[in-house]
Amino acid sequence: MNLESLFNPRSIAVVGASTRETLNINVFFPALVNAKFQGRLYPVNHNADEVFGYPAYPSVRDIPGPVDYVIIAIPRDHVMSVLKDCIFKKVPVAHIFTAGFDETHTPEGKKLNKELGELIAGRIRVIGPNCVGIYCPASRMAFLPQQTTRAGNIGFISQSGGHSSLFIETATSQGLYFSKAVSVGNALDLGTNDFLEYMGDDPDTQIIGVYVEGMTDGQGRRFFELVGKTSQEKPVMLMKAGRGEAGRRAAASHTGSMAGSYALWESMAKQTNAVMVNDYTEMADFIWAYKCVSHLSGLRAAVVCGGGGNSVWCGDTLSSLGLILPPLSRQTQKQILELTDIVGTFAPNPIDPNFSMFDPEVHYRVLEILDAQENIDLLINVGVFDFMYHTIITSGFATREAFVQEQVQRLAEIRKRVKKPFICVSFHVSENADMTEILNQVRQEARNLGVPCYSSMERMTHAVCRLYTYLQRRSDKQINRQ
Amino acid sequence: MNLESLFNPRSIAVVGASTRETLNINVFFPALVNAKFQGRLYPVNHNADEVFGYPAYPSVRDIPGPVDYVIIAIPRDHVMSVLKDCIFKKVPVAHIFTAGFDETHTPEGKKLNKELGELIAGRIRVIGPNCVGIYCPASRMAFLPQQTTRAGNIGFISQSGGHSSLFIETATSQGLYFSKAVSVGNALDLGTNDFLEYMGDDPDTQIIGVYVEGMTDGQGRRFFELVGKTSQEKPVMLMKAGRGEAGRRAAASHTGSMAGSYALWESMAKQTNAVMVNDYTEMADFIWAYKCVSHLSGLRAAVVCGGGGNSVWCGDTLSSLGLILPPLSRQTQKQILELTDIVGTFAPNPIDPNFSMFDPEVHYRVLEILDAQENIDLLINVGVFDFMYHTIITSGFATREAFVQEQVQRLAEIRKRVKKPFICVSFHVSENADMTEILNQVRQEARNLGVPCYSSMERMTHAVCRLYTYLQRRSDKQINRQ
Repeated sequence: MNLESLFNPRSIAVVGASTRETLNINVFFPALVNAKFQGRLYPVNHNADEVFGYPAYPSVRDIPGPVDYVIIAIPRDHVMSVLKDCIFKKVPVAHIFTAGFDETHTPEGKKLNKELGELIAGRIRVIGPNCVGIYCPASRMAFLPQQTTRAGNIGFISQSGGHSSLFIETATSQGLYFSKAVSVGNALDLGTNDFLEYMGDDPDTQIIGVYVEGMTDGQGRRFFELVGKTSQEKPVMLMKAGRGEAGRRAAASHTGSMAGSYALWESMAKQTNAVMVNDYTEMADFIWAYKCVSHLSGLRAAVVCGGGGNSVWCGDTLSSLGLILPPLSRQTQKQILELTDIVGTFAPNPIDPNFSMFDPEVHYRVLEILDAQENIDLLINVGVFDFMYHTIITSGFATREAFVQEQVQRLAEIRKRVKKPFICVSFHVSENADMTEILNQVRQEARNLGVPCYSSMERMTHAVCRLYTYLQRRSDKQINRQ
Repeated sequence: MNLESLFNPRSIAVVGASTRETLNINVFFPALVNAKFQGRLYPVNHNADEVFGYPAYPSVRDIPGPVDYVIIAIPRDHVMSVLKDCIFKKVPVAHIFTAGFDETHTPEGKKLNKELGELIAGRIRVIGPNCVGIYCPASRMAFLPQQTTRAGNIGFISQSGGHSSLFIETATSQGLYFSKAVSVGNALDLGTNDFLEYMGDDPDTQIIGVYVEGMTDGQGRRFFELVGKTSQEKPVMLMKAGRGEAGRRAAASHTGSMAGSYALWESMAKQTNAVMVNDYTEMADFIWAYKCVSHLSGLRAAVVCGGGGNSVWCGDTLSSLGLILPPLSRQTQKQILELTDIVGTFAPNPIDPNFSMFDPEVHYRVLEILDAQENIDLLINVGVFDFMYHTIITSGFATREAFVQEQVQRLAEIRKRVKKPFICVSFHVSENADMTEILNQVRQEARNLGVPCYSSMERMTHAVCRLYTYLQRRSDKQINRQ
């Protein structure tokens, strides 16, 4: 089938649409209402005349016009009969939210699953069961009422509905938006590979995230063929369940998946240039690095960090996680020390300009000097803001707004003045939600100005190392093809 | 000398006390004023008649009464002459904030250092140079105006003044308080070993953190002798510079330290039962685990986590970082599934009670069942609150206060009902400072009720594994001694 139409239905029916918002995840109807879905919406509920102001129908058969997409969110034992209604009504695709099939490992669950498969074959396409279906902001399809309809170019495919909701929330909170996200659950019919193939060709999708619990052998082979092809154009980020014993066991219970050998998945990821991540924060971290840095010649970083102990900590963390911090020449160190002229300053890399950081011009000049070094591939600025919070904000030296603007302005100015990739870490370690809010704002504004800005040294380092590996492997493949 | 008197001076003079708060770290005088230091305070400033309302003196010699402690915060070239004044005045101990000595690796710096050493020998004890000195809330000594005077039982010794300020801020933000903290800087005279020996015997200090950049061989040997002795009674947490190449280089510039082989330090830490950490968050994390859990028989955990994908993620993270999640027996799983009775629930460990978590009684019963398992050493509750934020807070199902109270009450109730160690992770991953504030509050209240509560699965796992290793090694040594 042409999946394009699946993301652009003219009408949607929700079977099991509740008349009120509930505490569980079945809020499909209000989510579509909130998103201002542009086509027709039909709630199906045989106990109600209307749902959220829309006339309700007792069954799919009773809906007057054609229906392009049906969401099924009713108890397991009624799913078959609703599907029969859908087939009668010539609905092309149904999304089954309901769980309780193969993943239960029970005889009833397996039996129902088999019957379901036999019923749909050649008659209707199915997403699920046991999943939350589609999020497509451009066509105003959402599955939670809080989801934004602002569209972007991230694609996401998930074997878990919870992870679909979690990654969408994580990414949008950082200002990253989606072309299409789909949760496939047990994947009785349409699965990860179908959507990966589609998104690989989709011009609206520039980067793809995938969460996989497990696949059968044939599916796995096809999956990596698709990854290998897609990743030459668009990165495919892969979060794979089964890194640990308990994760493998939970995956089997969750979607009935056999997670398989994680080492084998890692090795396949390496061959096909999939970007392996451990969680959604790392996925968002990689996306920002990829969006802002198009070329990275190596991992040799020059790092500016404020404070002696902090610089040592920073040097330890960055160099033990994979970045290379080449020592600067005596001449370069001298150039920097002449600028700062403060006792306590040092510049072996990391560079600690100490309190001369209070002068933005010194800060810019230090980075310009580093930008001119031949043995450096990228520039990193690390700010630890715990101490600064009291020194600047609570003591009244600057308002919060002025502080945010000053920080963002500095990063934007450095971005303008230097040629090499420029990456930033702005963080605090104490439990201070006020500072969290201030720094969330700094990071968000900086990223939108093209400076990837992270909340920990570890997160930044992992993102940069993953980006370098991805770009390097992609360019090696391109050379090999020539 | 008896270091006890050093932490309890009857009078303090600050040489270089500025008449106003500045943007640098020289705020010793206002810090002591803010802390309401109970003894006499003498600002020394030859350009001012008074400082923050206190009469100022042109030099230490001009102070009328005896002076127990002098803080020297003036340019390098004047330090010798002030020290001579101190010696003339029979001041027992001076803290030199000023930097620019051995750590500069310059001929002038080294020369001054040597002269300083010759001058003080047998005449006056010195903390520093290049450090921020003492924080002792019980005697109302602080070095930053924002530092609390609430006292606790953590001791801290740091070769970096910045790290001293950072760890104090991190710990107090979490409700952890100090007996004594001291930054030793270049340690020309009093050093890490002197303070470690003192804190080992100090009845007010129950746990000790140490930040070390480097030590000479003799010092290193003595250090580990002290660690070995102390750690039989009190944990000694060690953050050691030099994990990475760039950290080693920065340490040499910062305090002139040779960081030495990190592997050797790790091996010595293992032999002497020091608790190695990578940063201050990990130090605070360990303290909470140690405070709340006195006995841990092993690392076999039963884990409750909400959501299918989250449970897989949780199983992967915890089991790949060192915890063991034994599979539960069929009988136990059946007991749990009978309680929850919701499709989608699973219980192989991690247990996902799914939406039945909304019923606190189900939550308690699940944990009571797990508490009764013989093959389980500890119970862990993991809550990922991103989705809940919208479902509960912004949709108006509960106020923030009610949400915090409900969460804390649950954790406290579980703590009461179970016998095994009970640890918690309550976190969110999206950038949402409002949620950060809510969860900071949950974690802080829970910890104060005896439930260590962490902001990431990684942090929790590292803390629990470190605690088990520490307790295990301590008990092995106790057995060997018998």
